[in-house]
Amino acid sequence: MKGYILEGIGTALWKDDLAMPKAGPGEVVIKPVIVSPCTSDVHILETMAFPFMKGRALGHEAAGVVHEVGPEVKDFKTGDRVAVPSAITNWKIPEAQEGYDKYDSLSPYLNPDPRLQGCFAEYYLVKDADLNVARIPDTVTWEQAVMITDMATTAFEGVRWLNLKYGDTVVVYGIGPVGLMAVCGAALRGAGRIFGVGSRQVCFDVAREYGATDLVNYRDGDVAAQILEKNNGPVDAVIVCGGSDISAIASAMKMVRPGGTVTNVAAFMHDKEFVLPNDIWGYGCTDKTLRTVSARGGRAFMERLLALVEFGRFHPEKMATHIYRGMEHIPESLEKMGGKDRTAIKPVVFF
Amino acid sequence: MKGYILEGIGTALWKDDLAMPKAGPGEVVIKPVIVSPCTSDVHILETMAFPFMKGRALGHEAAGVVHEVGPEVKDFKTGDRVAVPSAITNWKIPEAQEGYDKYDSLSPYLNPDPRLQGCFAEYYLVKDADLNVARIPDTVTWEQAVMITDMATTAFEGVRWLNLKYGDTVVVYGIGPVGLMAVCGAALRGAGRIFGVGSRQVCFDVAREYGATDLVNYRDGDVAAQILEKNNGPVDAVIVCGGSDISAIASAMKMVRPGGTVTNVAAFMHDKEFVLPNDIWGYGCTDKTLRTVSARGGRAFMERLLALVEFGRFHPEKMATHIYRGMEHIPESLEKMGGKDRTAIKPVVFF
Amino acid sequence: MKGYILEGIGTALWKDDLAMPKAGPGEVVIKPVIVSPCTSDVHILETMAFPFMKGRALGHEAAGVVHEVGPEVKDFKTGDRVAVPSAITNWKIPEAQEGYDKYDSLSPYLNPDPRLQGCFAEYYLVKDADLNVARIPDTVTWEQAVMITDMATTAFEGVRWLNLKYGDTVVVYGIGPVGLMAVCGAALRGAGRIFGVGSRQVCFDVAREYGATDLVNYRDGDVAAQILEKNNGPVDAVIVCGGSDISAIASAMKMVRPGGTVTNVAAFMHDKEFVLPNDIWGYGCTDKTLRTVSARGGRAFMERLLALVEFGRFHPEKMATHIYRGMEHIPESLEKMGGKDRTAIKPVVFF
Amino acid sequence: MKGYILEGIGTALWKDDLAMPKAGPGEVVIKPVIVSPCTSDVHILETMAFPFMKGRALGHEAAGVVHEVGPEVKDFKTGDRVAVPSAITNWKIPEAQEGYDKYDSLSPYLNPDPRLQGCFAEYYLVKDADLNVARIPDTVTWEQAVMITDMATTAFEGVRWLNLKYGDTVVVYGIGPVGLMAVCGAALRGAGRIFGVGSRQVCFDVAREYGATDLVNYRDGDVAAQILEKNNGPVDAVIVCGGSDISAIASAMKMVRPGGTVTNVAAFMHDKEFVLPNDIWGYGCTDKTLRTVSARGGRAFMERLLALVEFGRFHPEKMATHIYRGMEHIPESLEKMGGKDRTAIKPVVFF
Repeated sequence: MKGYILEGIGTALWKDDLAMPKAGPGEVVIKPVIVSPCTSDVHILETMAFPFMKGRALGHEAAGVVHEVGPEVKDFKTGDRVAVPSAITNWKIPEAQEGYDKYDSLSPYLNPDPRLQGCFAEYYLVKDADLNVARIPDTVTWEQAVMITDMATTAFEGVRWLNLKYGDTVVVYGIGPVGLMAVCGAALRGAGRIFGVGSRQVCFDVAREYGATDLVNYRDGDVAAQILEKNNGPVDAVIVCGGSDISAIASAMKMVRPGGTVTNVAAFMHDKEFVLPNDIWGYGCTDKTLRTVSARGGRAFMERLLALVEFGRFHPEKMATHIYRGMEHIPESLEKMGGKDRTAIKPVVFF
Repeated sequence: MKGYILEGIGTALWKDDLAMPKAGPGEVVIKPVIVSPCTSDVHILETMAFPFMKGRALGHEAAGVVHEVGPEVKDFKTGDRVAVPSAITNWKIPEAQEGYDKYDSLSPYLNPDPRLQGCFAEYYLVKDADLNVARIPDTVTWEQAVMITDMATTAFEGVRWLNLKYGDTVVVYGIGPVGLMAVCGAALRGAGRIFGVGSRQVCFDVAREYGATDLVNYRDGDVAAQILEKNNGPVDAVIVCGGSDISAIASAMKMVRPGGTVTNVAAFMHDKEFVLPNDIWGYGCTDKTLRTVSARGGRAFMERLLALVEFGRFHPEKMATHIYRGMEHIPESLEKMGGKDRTAIKPVVFF
Repeated sequence: MKGYILEGIGTALWKDDLAMPKAGPGEVVIKPVIVSPCTSDVHILETMAFPFMKGRALGHEAAGVVHEVGPEVKDFKTGDRVAVPSAITNWKIPEAQEGYDKYDSLSPYLNPDPRLQGCFAEYYLVKDADLNVARIPDTVTWEQAVMITDMATTAFEGVRWLNLKYGDTVVVYGIGPVGLMAVCGAALRGAGRIFGVGSRQVCFDVAREYGATDLVNYRDGDVAAQILEKNNGPVDAVIVCGGSDISAIASAMKMVRPGGTVTNVAAFMHDKEFVLPNDIWGYGCTDKTLRTVSARGGRAFMERLLALVEFGRFHPEKMATHIYRGMEHIPESLEKMGGKDRTAIKPVVFF
Repeated sequence: MKGYILEGIGTALWKDDLAMPKAGPGEVVIKPVIVSPCTSDVHILETMAFPFMKGRALGHEAAGVVHEVGPEVKDFKTGDRVAVPSAITNWKIPEAQEGYDKYDSLSPYLNPDPRLQGCFAEYYLVKDADLNVARIPDTVTWEQAVMITDMATTAFEGVRWLNLKYGDTVVVYGIGPVGLMAVCGAALRGAGRIFGVGSRQVCFDVAREYGATDLVNYRDGDVAAQILEKNNGPVDAVIVCGGSDISAIASAMKMVRPGGTVTNVAAFMHDKEFVLPNDIWGYGCTDKTLRTVSARGGRAFMERLLALVEFGRFHPEKMATHIYRGMEHIPESLEKMGGKDRTAIKPVVFF
């Protein structure tokens, strides 16, 4: 079996003699049909941020078919079309009864089980399939499904924590693929005016289609200043989906009104500290909420987002600007994702 | 000044010698530009359900211009385009600090002040204008604005109490104008599948445009049975916006899943009792929520809904199937609303 | 092995040749140290309401020690002091990711597995122990622990759905053992005035100790009328924990204010219909919420309630008015629970 | 009329020729019976932080009697016992319909109306009395009432934003008077274990009486390290009520678990920046909420807290360690509050 294996900092190689995975109790083996590279794949490749990944296939955004079903799996059978969330977690812990499944990870990034691989392989294993793997509705395409696995689960969860009300004015700070999904997520929670902050035309265009009403280019000056002016005052909510560094969060806190909320779904791995000028929140007295949010997992949530696609509520496939055919294009797609092609939002690779 | 006055059961008459209203402190006089008749106007005319209305102009859905501004009004001036909510309430009570403004009404229906009239008059008075009257954004049309004043404030508030999650399956029971707004409201809170229950083609068509994915005709058999079959099981939430009698609520409770919610925004004035077969909620043990909800008032909420229209999130003007020009058409529009014209959703009258 | 077996309507018998349970994967065998009879045991004995119970030991409120640990159990070992919730459920389903675990029951009442028994036996099996069984803190007594398993999990969940605010006025309708726990639960969510409705002095006394500020005897006249008078108007919230029939819920709806909430945690098994006079909720227009609620399960929730006892927040052992020593007293304790002894709140039996 | 007037940085003087206030529409004149100095009075005296205060009487925690009632006041009459919140706000703005009353202040600290004074005067004016002034129940004492006006409204609002569940483990960081009220507030929302962080024995003693289960002395070492060790891991929630500088918030973020919440109700006026080591929240990826919260105003909230005192839910008067008789003791009470007397929690002064 073939896979694209992380060897060390900056090095990933094709191997074609990988052991074929075998589904144990509760597990399934997935044969990916489509995968998508993520900026965090690029980051991991560059930094080896997750030590467990050494020697494992990269990749965490995939949709495919069930190739083998282990004992005790109840809801899936060979050949089923499924999508796998980026956050594969252990729901069989008491903490999960209150929503903290994600702190016991079953993903190859965070779990030492040597049988685990990422999805940039011909086959890979997913644990606790009945609780993590999502069935793809017949009318949902592969391109749509793969966009749900990380981009939408991250963005929609970040929007959920904004606790929007009908008509709220929302800023999506950073309209890469997660931010574009946040535009959709905000529109689908009743946002009125939606500002999208970015710099690339391709993202502006899709953001507009997704429901952004105002587009702000961070190259045109201080983002908070631009938005405070355009909006004639502070906004109700901001979701930070990217930025050159963690000062994006401080900027978000500046542009949100008293009583408002900022969520952050971006990973600022290169920053040692978050620094907030103390006057921005009235020296600790002005009512503002800041929530950091990671991608939500779980079959139930995944299937909810797939239902939204099924019923036409949003159209994630518009982000698939570059479609490759053949697994051998994975390295190229990674370069496209990490690189400076200003026309790329999200490449996908059909195997 | 001219107005269409409720005289007694079944009788309303034009009078043209009404005293011109005079704006006192905090008050404005509105000159309606557009009004819309409501089924509750028809009901009030038929039954005199609100005794204060005797001798007053009917009508509670209007948008218009500010004709006169009383002392202490801060935010409006003569000529401003405004919409007035059906629920005009007293926000200057401690209860309003916790959301119960509506139980001290400033509407002509519930308030004894003889200076109050409904909006079917050339001019009428609105109290506490800064807190009740909503400014209409420039790009929002009169037809759109008038639809917000009762249809949307009722429906969106009913949907709000459903506490929807992304991807929920929702039934809108009764797709007259309130139900159609509920379809929009549900789609804008992230509903996936939306069933619309009705019987008229004109409503089915608009429901589809508004986001309903499945249309159920109550003439085709028991509604709960139809939906349980089509959905292959119970739904997450139901909003009851109409029905031939109050058994619609029991039907809704039957089709909702354990853990789910039913809200009712319809007034079942002709029923003495609500009767629920006890097995529907497991003899009181199955977790189900039932909330009765009335139209929300307040300038803030109105302006939120108008912002949604301004930014293109929904299109209430599609409900305006019949447009009359001239205040003299009010009786005709009332007949249209109360009558059996199966092509009418919501008539409007330009003065 | 010995157990008290339900044979048929009105008949339960001791058997001493029951097969010893054997812990399979994820399962534990519990040796009860203390059990408590419940009115629902009495009801089941009288009506055979749950057909699966035929031939099984009765009982669903127990605390004890872990006797045997099956494979795959991670968090418990032989000899651990544990409490078992009345609602033993399947948390390994996607529905549980959103709180609907309880609809796939692993309790002997609702699950066909012939290896299951109730807790009125020397030993009994509990499935999915890591997710259902709760560890008892060292300083929590057996009498305290057994009161959590059903009385507190039901009452506190019912109170939770009241969404209380600091200072709310709450009525606990029916101050048997569940109602007494609801008094504690309401005080621990910030209720101000708490009315307890009952008739027995022993319950009034404990209710007062638990934080009830006003006691209402339903024998003194219409309950809603009494409370509306004493409170000088409607209350913020009502939890119905009992009543002679389901009209208690209508009474609760009558005494709650617009905007308020009623929850019901009582099972009204003898009523065919719930009937609500339509004027009580303004013909469907007055904002009132009614939620039916069943006992919550799950180890996490159980351990939260046990923590409250551990840290002295409430004192459930005060309800243990009758303490029996020896499992042979189970029938006597059932009679005490179901009978008319006006000094009994909740008997317990040490094995 | 006499008052204790802020003249400039570090200077406040008695004046006895102040103009007697006159109640205009909606206003009342209060004759304080009891006042309490606040650390923020000390801060304002030292720094002139609020320029409007120059020439005005200091003080914002008072309970007293209504001396004069202006026109349009409906709910109060001369002689009524009332408490006045520290946050006197304008509820007659649309923002207040959604909870943002506090951003249009009617307090002397933030409002330019020259008729306004603080409460360290024989008489002072309060605007919008029906919406801001709270009636004191007969059984609530003056000492109790004055503690509600700022200490409890701040602390209980901070706790409210923690969104506690039954059994949560909570840290109250800083157990001065606000922190002590937070201990009560947390216990009354169902907290289990409550850590109190401080250093003075008098505060530890009252914290214990109020429901703190564990007391941590910040002089014994790093607070986060101490709590993580004692709790054997992170806690569910932290409310920051004080600290030597704003690093207290970073410490709180460190000790809270993923999924948990920190609220801050302290004003860190001397810090230019808030600095958070980025690993504490997983570089922006670990789910943690931080909310800054200011004192809540409004008659409804005040009367809720007074109801809690009336019904014996908490006992704020225990904080009144030093009781002065005679308005002339105000400067002495301010020194006591600002000074280093380790036996003082909260002085009060009866006029």
